[in-house]
Amino acid sequence: MIPGDDVTIRAVCEEDGENGLFQVLSQLTQAPYIPREQFINLLNTQQSQDARLTIVAVRDGRVLATGSVMIEPKFIRGGKPCGHIEDIVVDKDARGMQLGKRIIQFLVEHCQQKGCYKVILDCADDNVPFYEKCGFKPKERQMACYL
Amino acid sequence: MIPGDDVTIRAVCEEDGENGLFQVLSQLTQAPYIPREQFINLLNTQQSQDARLTIVAVRDGRVLATGSVMIEPKFIRGGKPCGHIEDIVVDKDARGMQLGKRIIQFLVEHCQQKGCYKVILDCADDNVPFYEKCGFKPKERQMACYL
Repeated sequence: MIPGDDVTIRAVCEEDGENGLFQVLSQLTQAPYIPREQFINLLNTQQSQDARLTIVAVRDGRVLATGSVMIEPKFIRGGKPCGHIEDIVVDKDARGMQLGKRIIQFLVEHCQQKGCYKVILDCADDNVPFYEKCGFKPKERQMACYL
Repeated sequence: MIPGDDVTIRAVCEEDGENGLFQVLSQLTQAPYIPREQFINLLNTQQSQDARLTIVAVRDGRVLATGSVMIEPKFIRGGKPCGHIEDIVVDKDARGMQLGKRIIQFLVEHCQQKGCYKVILDCADDNVPFYEKCGFKPKERQMACYL
């Protein structure tokens, strides 16, 4: 038998909190045990949640800038969510008004209200200084697979 | 008046598809106009969706590895979603069984079934070769802000 042939891959279930999920996750990051009832609630939240918010900066009814954030409920960090900022863009004719910064601030505050332990985003190298001014620091490498 | 003081930031609404949202998003990436009815459906999906799947690799009822994916419905790319892979970890005693690779394959296939145009993830520089073997390529820089 090939090693691993006897291993099944399936969706997480209500019992997995007792089956070593947290011992495994703890090898990645802080992932303290979450009691069964809280674990089941978290599982339900992950399956049907208020997941994504898109905001816009508008003047006279026109969209000048936009940004989005997803709130990801996690099993790590005691079930605290992580915010994912996506699709930040300011109209080319609306630059110099700090709209990008305001969009980011709004989204970060939204993450704070949702109890996120961190907010992450991916950007081109050229945009690193902008996000550093917004309080972000370079961290990992983004990898992509186009389908 | 300071430039931009007359700009309001708020959640996206059903009318914004007609108010220049796609013209702005098109400055970021491919973001063709989405007709109003489809736009409203997409907006509803973004607000209450089957958002996140955690899978586990198990043997004799014990979790040996885990990984998660979020399906993010987007307004860009004609409303096609993007998959976000998160929290991949294989138990230290279960290495060498290709479980990491199988977890990634399972999650990428899930993204394909959901109609995603791409799958992304963030990893440490040391793990870039592993994800390259899984079909991913380095792309952007991840930035993080801890709250």
